[in-house]
Amino acid sequence: MKPFFKLMSREKLQELVSAFQPLAPVSTGLKGALGLITAQDYHAPEDLPPFARSTMDGYAIRSRDTFGASESQPALFRVIGEVTMGTSPEGMTIGQGEAARIWTGGELPNGADAVVMVEYTNILSDDTIEVFKAIAPGGNVIERGEDVEQGSLILPKGTRLRAQDLGLLAGLGLSKIRVHPRPRVAIISTGDELVPPDGPVPRGKIRDINATTLAAAVKNAGGISYYLGIVRDSRGELASVCKKALASDADVILVSGGSSVGQRDFTLETFSHIEGSRLLTHGVSVRPGKPTILAKVEGKALVGLPGHAASAMVVFYLFVYPLLKRMMGFVSDDDLYLKKMRVSVSRNIASAPGKEEYLRVRIKNRNNGPVAEPVFGKSGLITPLVKADGLLVIPRDCEGIYAGEDAEVLLFP
Amino acid sequence: MKPFFKLMSREKLQELVSAFQPLAPVSTGLKGALGLITAQDYHAPEDLPPFARSTMDGYAIRSRDTFGASESQPALFRVIGEVTMGTSPEGMTIGQGEAARIWTGGELPNGADAVVMVEYTNILSDDTIEVFKAIAPGGNVIERGEDVEQGSLILPKGTRLRAQDLGLLAGLGLSKIRVHPRPRVAIISTGDELVPPDGPVPRGKIRDINATTLAAAVKNAGGISYYLGIVRDSRGELASVCKKALASDADVILVSGGSSVGQRDFTLETFSHIEGSRLLTHGVSVRPGKPTILAKVEGKALVGLPGHAASAMVVFYLFVYPLLKRMMGFVSDDDLYLKKMRVSVSRNIASAPGKEEYLRVRIKNRNNGPVAEPVFGKSGLITPLVKADGLLVIPRDCEGIYAGEDAEVLLFP
Repeated sequence: MKPFFKLMSREKLQELVSAFQPLAPVSTGLKGALGLITAQDYHAPEDLPPFARSTMDGYAIRSRDTFGASESQPALFRVIGEVTMGTSPEGMTIGQGEAARIWTGGELPNGADAVVMVEYTNILSDDTIEVFKAIAPGGNVIERGEDVEQGSLILPKGTRLRAQDLGLLAGLGLSKIRVHPRPRVAIISTGDELVPPDGPVPRGKIRDINATTLAAAVKNAGGISYYLGIVRDSRGELASVCKKALASDADVILVSGGSSVGQRDFTLETFSHIEGSRLLTHGVSVRPGKPTILAKVEGKALVGLPGHAASAMVVFYLFVYPLLKRMMGFVSDDDLYLKKMRVSVSRNIASAPGKEEYLRVRIKNRNNGPVAEPVFGKSGLITPLVKADGLLVIPRDCEGIYAGEDAEVLLFP
Repeated sequence: MKPFFKLMSREKLQELVSAFQPLAPVSTGLKGALGLITAQDYHAPEDLPPFARSTMDGYAIRSRDTFGASESQPALFRVIGEVTMGTSPEGMTIGQGEAARIWTGGELPNGADAVVMVEYTNILSDDTIEVFKAIAPGGNVIERGEDVEQGSLILPKGTRLRAQDLGLLAGLGLSKIRVHPRPRVAIISTGDELVPPDGPVPRGKIRDINATTLAAAVKNAGGISYYLGIVRDSRGELASVCKKALASDADVILVSGGSSVGQRDFTLETFSHIEGSRLLTHGVSVRPGKPTILAKVEGKALVGLPGHAASAMVVFYLFVYPLLKRMMGFVSDDDLYLKKMRVSVSRNIASAPGKEEYLRVRIKNRNNGPVAEPVFGKSGLITPLVKADGLLVIPRDCEGIYAGEDAEVLLFP
């Protein structure tokens, strides 16, 4: 007698997934940190900028000396020198009626509190200029610490690092930072009928599709995948490959195929026999995707995915995608799950109640807005996924959706 | 006399950017192809699957032999063998009243047209089973070519490759494909005042921020950046670094700083002196970001960005981001430009007309929906960008937006 599944709800399994901890922080350079999550608060170790800087090409002056200056009544200044770019004008002090040539980004000399743009000046002689516009104190100057003051919190723990955040860290010399790393995901395909995509295909064999699909989906989630190959349908071989992956640096092991309860399904048994493993579920109440296995061993996840292409993908995006995001330190539902939209459906769609159903749909733009159009096909086919833009969710106790009614669609990345 | 800018509109410059051609196609493996665009149509070189397959564990039978079978009146079958996984049952033919054991993914033997699930069978003896459910022809079978028929168009030219698309290619043995490659972007920072982020900072110097920000922004756009370092403010040095980058494999050169018309701004002159270069614009009517240079040399782009952090980023996302997307083969505005949303503004915002203004804003969720709240600060500062979620667009001839009015916000990736 084939054993029965005890199905867990989608909500409950997603809860178990969210209970995984973010991976232990690592130190990384800024180049590889885009999109990662900070594992600690960051404070400014110094003022930025470290000195008052000019934001224009012009003359550093005392602003009060331009009082009343205009086209008809310019103020005269004696040019006492030039601030050489990239050096500090340490010996220089701007006194009353004095000016120093300065360039964008140059350090303001002592005494000066503003920069008059070159456009508002005329050179009268080697050391005399006239200025025909009054300027306010601080004009065309970035004050020391105006960008960031030493000690202030610049990026709290849990920040997803964007381009500008990395720029700020660079500006403060924080070129090594602590982040949650990308999870490393070992991918294993099982099945005596499988051969790699790029070799010859003997009769009775078929090319492995899931390894390629899953590797790309792992990348979509921010993880790093590596491929452990095709494992024959045998207890011993699968167990030894899984153990090897756990002993190296895999954070997640994805086994596709063999996750059901048939005589040739060894994933559950293999996971159960791994020392310290705890089975969290076998079977989830979604269609397609029922024969799903999740086990945990020392913070690492063992996932058994159904072998059918559509089932594997549904289970990946519902449970593995948020798992990987969670390991990277993401917290909010918006970050953990696929983007959603509500659209009306193009035709009546029937659904057998009892399981939440994920229907492949194409989004078409009609005059009165986007509609979801089902793409039918068996869950063992890959083409319907290729034709689809996302997955329309039919709730568990719903027998169908009428044409024109709204439904939620999870959008494929 | 400082020369005047002749400003180009944002629309016109974006048009010039869209006129760049996608990069010449390259051949790549599936692993690196996620998110890239196909450079040709792809047709199926063979049927997928190459033979009729079972989608269940069960028995291959002739469906007509189950006619009328039920719990109370099971049909009897003689089991004539087993389809070994991964081999073709070439010698086997299923005759009337005969069945063969078969597993999920196994090849259907001759004569059989359906698979009865093991759940609906009972073993009576070594070679006899009873089947207590009628099954339709094709039941639990994927026909040969049901996923894809040989010769059919599977992915047209111009397809952005997603996980499932790569899976389909793998399934058909198309493991090398022609795509437009990721553009290679050489990043150069100019300025005598700049030092790298991770070294000591002598007085009068400041750490380079733009190189880090731009490298990450290039990655956001799908490009590959490499850093050519900080170039002193000198004609000769900048020219020689640019020429070296062009001679190697750079598709785009980004020079930040020195793009204006001051005495120390050498970018324009450098670009103009590069053999075969054609200046497309110097100066664009956006604020911040006016001193922007775009030149073209043999399909490659030379871009001079303003040195101020906010200006460089605005110009990057308005013009360089779509340029890189375009080089990758993207066509539609949705793909070329940053995502947008319309939100109401939190307070009155004044703007000097004459230029399109890009105001850094934070998006806050209020009871009646999201609002955009300006983050003020000089364009030379990086912190306002760190605090911002996007750029609010104030149209060119608009003197401001009232609190509560709607405006468009470009969202930072």
